[in-house]
Amino acid sequence: MYRIGVDLGGTKIAAALVDKNNVITDRLTAPTLPERGNDAVSSDISSLVKSLCAKNGLKPSEIELLGIAAPGAINSETGYIERAHNLSMEHYPMVDKVRALTGVENIIIENDANAAALGEAVAGAAKDTSCSVLITLGTGVGGGLVIDGKVFSGFNHTGGEFGHMVIRADGRPCNCGRKGCWEAYSSATALIARTKEAMEKDPGSVMHKVTEELGKVSGKTAFIAARRGDKLAAQVVDEYVSYLACGIVNVINLLQPEVLSLGGGISNEGDGLMIPLKKKIDEESFIRGLGESTKIRIAKLGNDAGLIGAANLK
Amino acid sequence: MYRIGVDLGGTKIAAALVDKNNVITDRLTAPTLPERGNDAVSSDISSLVKSLCAKNGLKPSEIELLGIAAPGAINSETGYIERAHNLSMEHYPMVDKVRALTGVENIIIENDANAAALGEAVAGAAKDTSCSVLITLGTGVGGGLVIDGKVFSGFNHTGGEFGHMVIRADGRPCNCGRKGCWEAYSSATALIARTKEAMEKDPGSVMHKVTEELGKVSGKTAFIAARRGDKLAAQVVDEYVSYLACGIVNVINLLQPEVLSLGGGISNEGDGLMIPLKKKIDEESFIRGLGESTKIRIAKLGNDAGLIGAANLK
Repeated sequence: MYRIGVDLGGTKIAAALVDKNNVITDRLTAPTLPERGNDAVSSDISSLVKSLCAKNGLKPSEIELLGIAAPGAINSETGYIERAHNLSMEHYPMVDKVRALTGVENIIIENDANAAALGEAVAGAAKDTSCSVLITLGTGVGGGLVIDGKVFSGFNHTGGEFGHMVIRADGRPCNCGRKGCWEAYSSATALIARTKEAMEKDPGSVMHKVTEELGKVSGKTAFIAARRGDKLAAQVVDEYVSYLACGIVNVINLLQPEVLSLGGGISNEGDGLMIPLKKKIDEESFIRGLGESTKIRIAKLGNDAGLIGAANLK
Repeated sequence: MYRIGVDLGGTKIAAALVDKNNVITDRLTAPTLPERGNDAVSSDISSLVKSLCAKNGLKPSEIELLGIAAPGAINSETGYIERAHNLSMEHYPMVDKVRALTGVENIIIENDANAAALGEAVAGAAKDTSCSVLITLGTGVGGGLVIDGKVFSGFNHTGGEFGHMVIRADGRPCNCGRKGCWEAYSSATALIARTKEAMEKDPGSVMHKVTEELGKVSGKTAFIAARRGDKLAAQVVDEYVSYLACGIVNVINLLQPEVLSLGGGISNEGDGLMIPLKKKIDEESFIRGLGESTKIRIAKLGNDAGLIGAANLK
């Protein structure tokens, strides 16, 4: 059984051959360069797939599944990328294009966050669970829900927008047009903005020193400064963790996934994030003392989650 | 095919014979009187089931499914009512008890809000959909998610607590211990509390006259007074509808159900609720212009939703 997963990003396209144990045995990458137009991108995806086949002595007809993880609003039923701002794509028939160019019959496309959630469910932090959620803390807050080995994203395939759940009505403005979305509090972008605000207030904060060392303000700045005893940084971290816990408990109360894993840059903080986070989640949990509760874990597969998830689409 | 649905409430037990078209062909009821102890309640459920069988010339062995909808935290896998405050039940083996007393083999128990969501999905407002959500606006805000004809409530069967999603961090206190839950803004209880607050501020408000006519302040008071031109009442309604829309858009962004139906007392307001509500939902929707969106409907089955849903449990 040969399967290929493709991860189409704004800057890079990756294609990987995935074996039956969900191990990546070979991979190829190319720059996306979306400014060349949509057809140049689908053509490059197809070239990567064909090269990967040739390199491994396979015919495209031997590929049982070619899964594509792509950003934006994806209709996995029709195979269209309905809207992907960073690819400048609108209603683009990606599956048909790649099928015509590669000759692979079974091609499925899915939103990249959903594909990553599936990757973690089949081979990562949520392996061997009946239902799981992945939340990614990066530029935005993304996520995906997997039930019985399959992505669930609603009747129109646009669900899983966990970051666009309002947790503070009339709160901080969000790119989506709403006010108070989880993303406006729990993304790396939001953390960096709050870190900068705090630094402006206190020129003596350790965060300034950390910034000099790192060369810029990042999602790590407040965490590092807090560990060095800076009180203002500890407040920034505490506020960040509180909002993160608020959204996570919302997801738990609605969906009770067996595992909720955290991916994206901020999840690299490890225990510095997880210990206070788990404490806050426990405090707010609705069903304390009623049997098993959701396990909170760090995602395992990093950037490979999308590739492995893509190779497991149904 | 004979199926019986039971709806166990704090004040009343109902049992109904449900035909293959999901029509209730006969029903019996009895008072719950939970103060008599848990075994008295399971015994009365069993008596109702046996009477319903006898009355319709059926043997308990001919009942293909006996479904029980019960309040609180239910483990549908073990058949236990884990915690139901208004029944004074804690870790009670309801399914085993009723099986022993009735001789019906296939008995499934489920949370009543989840069962009602299933009822609406198979025979009500969300008939013929692949996924739907029911939100009930009553004493609290309850709900249930149905995917492919089956309740989804997470790995531990305690999901679907839509009312306990925080929509305003650090907001109004909720019975669950969190602050700012949707329930604290969108339940009938919350609407009544806000109506009373507004009435205290303005002794000349039409809401006082409406209260005299109705005999008490209810979830209808502000709606009626607003229709008669009372500005303060219109503000109360507008705030209520805004928070309701906020939570609904959250649910849509996460789950994209084909239909989201509204049940419970407040849903009886009909167009007075639905027209401004749909307007606010449209304004906040994330995927405007990307194909089909969730249909918002009034639930159809009223109190029968739990009975019909119970008879369709899997």
